[in-house]
Amino acid sequence: MEQLLAQVLAAIEPHRGEGKVADYIPALACADPGKFGIAVAGADGVVHGAGDCDEPFSIQSISKVFTLALALTRVGADLWQRVGREPSGSAFNSIVQLERESGKPRNPLINAGAIATTDALIGDGDGDSAIAGLLAFLRAQAQDDRIAVDEHVAASEAATGSRNRSLAWFMKTYGIIDNEVETALDAYFRQCAIAMSCRQLARAGLFLAFDGRDPVTGEEAIVWHNARRINSVMLLCGHYDNSGEFAYRVGLPGKSGVGGGILAIAPGRGAIAVWSPGLNEFGTSAVGARALEQFVERTGWSVFAGLANPTAGAT
Amino acid sequence: MEQLLAQVLAAIEPHRGEGKVADYIPALACADPGKFGIAVAGADGVVHGAGDCDEPFSIQSISKVFTLALALTRVGADLWQRVGREPSGSAFNSIVQLERESGKPRNPLINAGAIATTDALIGDGDGDSAIAGLLAFLRAQAQDDRIAVDEHVAASEAATGSRNRSLAWFMKTYGIIDNEVETALDAYFRQCAIAMSCRQLARAGLFLAFDGRDPVTGEEAIVWHNARRINSVMLLCGHYDNSGEFAYRVGLPGKSGVGGGILAIAPGRGAIAVWSPGLNEFGTSAVGARALEQFVERTGWSVFAGLANPTAGAT
Amino acid sequence: MEQLLAQVLAAIEPHRGEGKVADYIPALACADPGKFGIAVAGADGVVHGAGDCDEPFSIQSISKVFTLALALTRVGADLWQRVGREPSGSAFNSIVQLERESGKPRNPLINAGAIATTDALIGDGDGDSAIAGLLAFLRAQAQDDRIAVDEHVAASEAATGSRNRSLAWFMKTYGIIDNEVETALDAYFRQCAIAMSCRQLARAGLFLAFDGRDPVTGEEAIVWHNARRINSVMLLCGHYDNSGEFAYRVGLPGKSGVGGGILAIAPGRGAIAVWSPGLNEFGTSAVGARALEQFVERTGWSVFAGLANPTAGAT
Amino acid sequence: MEQLLAQVLAAIEPHRGEGKVADYIPALACADPGKFGIAVAGADGVVHGAGDCDEPFSIQSISKVFTLALALTRVGADLWQRVGREPSGSAFNSIVQLERESGKPRNPLINAGAIATTDALIGDGDGDSAIAGLLAFLRAQAQDDRIAVDEHVAASEAATGSRNRSLAWFMKTYGIIDNEVETALDAYFRQCAIAMSCRQLARAGLFLAFDGRDPVTGEEAIVWHNARRINSVMLLCGHYDNSGEFAYRVGLPGKSGVGGGILAIAPGRGAIAVWSPGLNEFGTSAVGARALEQFVERTGWSVFAGLANPTAGAT
Repeated sequence: MEQLLAQVLAAIEPHRGEGKVADYIPALACADPGKFGIAVAGADGVVHGAGDCDEPFSIQSISKVFTLALALTRVGADLWQRVGREPSGSAFNSIVQLERESGKPRNPLINAGAIATTDALIGDGDGDSAIAGLLAFLRAQAQDDRIAVDEHVAASEAATGSRNRSLAWFMKTYGIIDNEVETALDAYFRQCAIAMSCRQLARAGLFLAFDGRDPVTGEEAIVWHNARRINSVMLLCGHYDNSGEFAYRVGLPGKSGVGGGILAIAPGRGAIAVWSPGLNEFGTSAVGARALEQFVERTGWSVFAGLANPTAGAT
Repeated sequence: MEQLLAQVLAAIEPHRGEGKVADYIPALACADPGKFGIAVAGADGVVHGAGDCDEPFSIQSISKVFTLALALTRVGADLWQRVGREPSGSAFNSIVQLERESGKPRNPLINAGAIATTDALIGDGDGDSAIAGLLAFLRAQAQDDRIAVDEHVAASEAATGSRNRSLAWFMKTYGIIDNEVETALDAYFRQCAIAMSCRQLARAGLFLAFDGRDPVTGEEAIVWHNARRINSVMLLCGHYDNSGEFAYRVGLPGKSGVGGGILAIAPGRGAIAVWSPGLNEFGTSAVGARALEQFVERTGWSVFAGLANPTAGAT
Repeated sequence: MEQLLAQVLAAIEPHRGEGKVADYIPALACADPGKFGIAVAGADGVVHGAGDCDEPFSIQSISKVFTLALALTRVGADLWQRVGREPSGSAFNSIVQLERESGKPRNPLINAGAIATTDALIGDGDGDSAIAGLLAFLRAQAQDDRIAVDEHVAASEAATGSRNRSLAWFMKTYGIIDNEVETALDAYFRQCAIAMSCRQLARAGLFLAFDGRDPVTGEEAIVWHNARRINSVMLLCGHYDNSGEFAYRVGLPGKSGVGGGILAIAPGRGAIAVWSPGLNEFGTSAVGARALEQFVERTGWSVFAGLANPTAGAT
Repeated sequence: MEQLLAQVLAAIEPHRGEGKVADYIPALACADPGKFGIAVAGADGVVHGAGDCDEPFSIQSISKVFTLALALTRVGADLWQRVGREPSGSAFNSIVQLERESGKPRNPLINAGAIATTDALIGDGDGDSAIAGLLAFLRAQAQDDRIAVDEHVAASEAATGSRNRSLAWFMKTYGIIDNEVETALDAYFRQCAIAMSCRQLARAGLFLAFDGRDPVTGEEAIVWHNARRINSVMLLCGHYDNSGEFAYRVGLPGKSGVGGGILAIAPGRGAIAVWSPGLNEFGTSAVGARALEQFVERTGWSVFAGLANPTAGAT
């Protein structure tokens, strides 16, 4: 695996710095576009890494996956009463679909859906407890207590979040949001501001590759059918209106964040995290997606492949 | 497997007749809603069946998968210049997206995309040759020469196809269709009118589960990466605006047709075909989808599952 | 004119109580659907009235016309940089168009446009001054100092205004709103809560029928070209997605409010105000619109008519 | 009036050649962008003209007004069952609205609505009779027998009309079109290809300014209420998504064509026709609209003006 990661690193080398760093908040804008990290957690729990795999970055929308996991555990299938599970066919922050469908977001991985999911996770508790619970979950899965919210980033998000406020108020009109709009938004902005390294992220997502259980300890993080369903939602909706492209090229459930991170899940095999701040036009890490494509081409871990290593000798 | 299919048959028994039979053409309208068939083709090429698995039905949109396979082989990646590969977020026959995106259909499995794909398959040949080639391909894969177009159904489709005509003329405006509109439509209507049984369909789709090769003969039907990509498009777009639901419940690439058939692909394992004429509100066989859900729950063949048989003892 | 108003009153008598009273805030919900008032102010400044023409009601969106008049005077044609002047082709509170057109509302008479116009009227002053200025203007035009904001209604509007909050935050994203969102909304909700009688309203709107001047005093309320342009915007956009119907039936620039009032302008002739709380499906007073149709049929005041009294002897 | 037209001519002189000539068919593409004509028909039936007012041009969409007049006479208010009368809020050839509203076009002046209106005019007759009737009507109103279809233009329209074919087939799906699609389209393309001069056009439209009657002969061309309603539809929908702008600037019911002509109606005063081939981005003659703005500013003929000549001394 170390060797394979070295090959991936070499393959993306000519592309380093591609894409456009998110610039809507200063904390993201000053990220170095030349950075690249990759980490893979396998069935044995060992995490292999390469490049800047130990450098924490803002996971941004990748947090939506973990919030979804906890919210599904907390409220069960009732969550789907207020959030759908279909691809949106539009941008991550589109409000058009909300109007057409009575304020119900298409899925939990677009902004509106993640705000609604965060609201469901808060329930009749408070935002701080919800975020504390999320951090505890991430730390336990990653087996690393250093994972935390970057409150500086959270404050920047809140300060520039007028479009998300618009989405939240729109849903409030339809009763999709139970808590005060600012309560839901505050928790939403904070979860997006969680900082993690590729290494931490790959380990934290490992339970999704093994039906909700940690493959080392055997401990159940979430119930098996929810794990599969989250993978399904990630594959179909994890990259907004670029999800088809990602599935086509990479062939794994994944979730991208505008911080440049991507978490990908290979069911039965492991979890892969990549990070490189330059984004393509849909907000997915350009070099990160390229690295995952290389990784899958070399491992044959695509969920659409018929053989354990189907490309061996085929290319 | 025989025993497992019997269990599925028993599980759907109380639901037989559910859904609404397509009624826009007489040939479909008179289908018996109580019919149900299922067939599974495995790595050894053996096809196991149950229920009405030998009765031919109109495969309708399932044909789009095979047309896509041949068109990709014929024109290669250039196909994606004129057809996208993203979920549409709208109904199978929506024209709204076409206007927003300069006449380029979102994917090859919605009507507009399939018409454009058919046009690409025709190329500078003629429609009859294209359909003859498609039938030859299906017969070879299914190892059954009886597969044919039901010309009566084709004529009915053509007679009621004003909406598809509208889609085709719209694309013609943008140069997405090269041939005469009626040429492309005629071939499109005829492919939709192909009649096959579950048994034939499962066997015909088997190459998609094995990276494009027949697992028995080892013969390459299509190149391996196209097989994966077709699976990807099926999983994300195979059931129009119900694709998320299908992925969530079944967890396999699949394609439904308004004749009540569904073809599902389990990479590395096999191909499953079900048929039952009653449709849900999105045009997918209601009992067929239920049967596939049961089948996957029993086999653990979901692409999102971590274990070979992950549900054993888990439920 | 008294006799003519009596005829109109008689004509609508069988329809009294038709329509559905707005029920989203208690203050409007308890309006008596049987109420009906009409008042006409002519070139001589005399106001003729009939029915409940002296009873104050919540003018709601009719206020948008006066806010537009003052905002145009204040910021001039620059207003059109942030608000368009095209019909919207959609509902009064639609957010879809905002997304399609970068946050710029289609016209100043839909909710989003009126919020943006209110924000422009506030400018770098404060909301209280803006509302005080609006009231002073209305009192001067109506020559009646009793006109005031119903603060109870304003508070109810604010409490239920999540959709308007969503619109405002959306525009804030695009810099269409300069002030704090709550500042603009507070002033917006208060202007909607102004209470006036038909008599006051007809007199207050008279300047619009005479190129911006009070026909009695000759005093200029607004510059002549703005008066014509406001009439134009009223005719094309005054009733949301029912504007075409109103123009077709009544043939006068008009603006409706969900309180059941309608102000109509007959250029060169006078201003007509009607009030009846029952609304049609588009939020326009059902009986009020009917009364205006009767009034125009009897007077020939349609802007589309060729003769002073074109229907005399024609019907 | 002669003097006034000379002033208008002088005012537009610096702008001659502005705009972009329609280039989708050769016959329009080769029009000289420097051409400009204007003609005004008054209550006395006398037509004053200036510039290239005697040169025939392709009236294109202006024909929709006359087709509407005849169709309303033929089928009465039933026409509104299949065509609406609201502004569309979108482009002249948009299909999005058709999908949202079950195939019913928003108004008779967008392409879809005009095709449906043409189909209604044909009724159970044939297309040739419908066009013959339209020509007879135009010749009678214009008192000029030379008005004819330019069959060369009609053939070009037909050859490039795939988008209109798409619209027509879409409506056919919903039963909005009764005749064969090609029958309705053929008549539609031919009416668009009628050639008229400004002088002919102004005279032909005069009945619309006088409640449906020829002001000289007193003869009824159409019933008075239809004349008003057509004016209403022209004012709200006559320039597609630029109607608000035209109403705001010119203040008269009008209809533009991509041939560069505009017909404007001043109720009670007269009809004005202008022609200049260069179009603005919405397909309205740039110089023509400017000329009308100048004309109305000098005559005060705006339907929104309070005084006979309100701008006198006001500018």
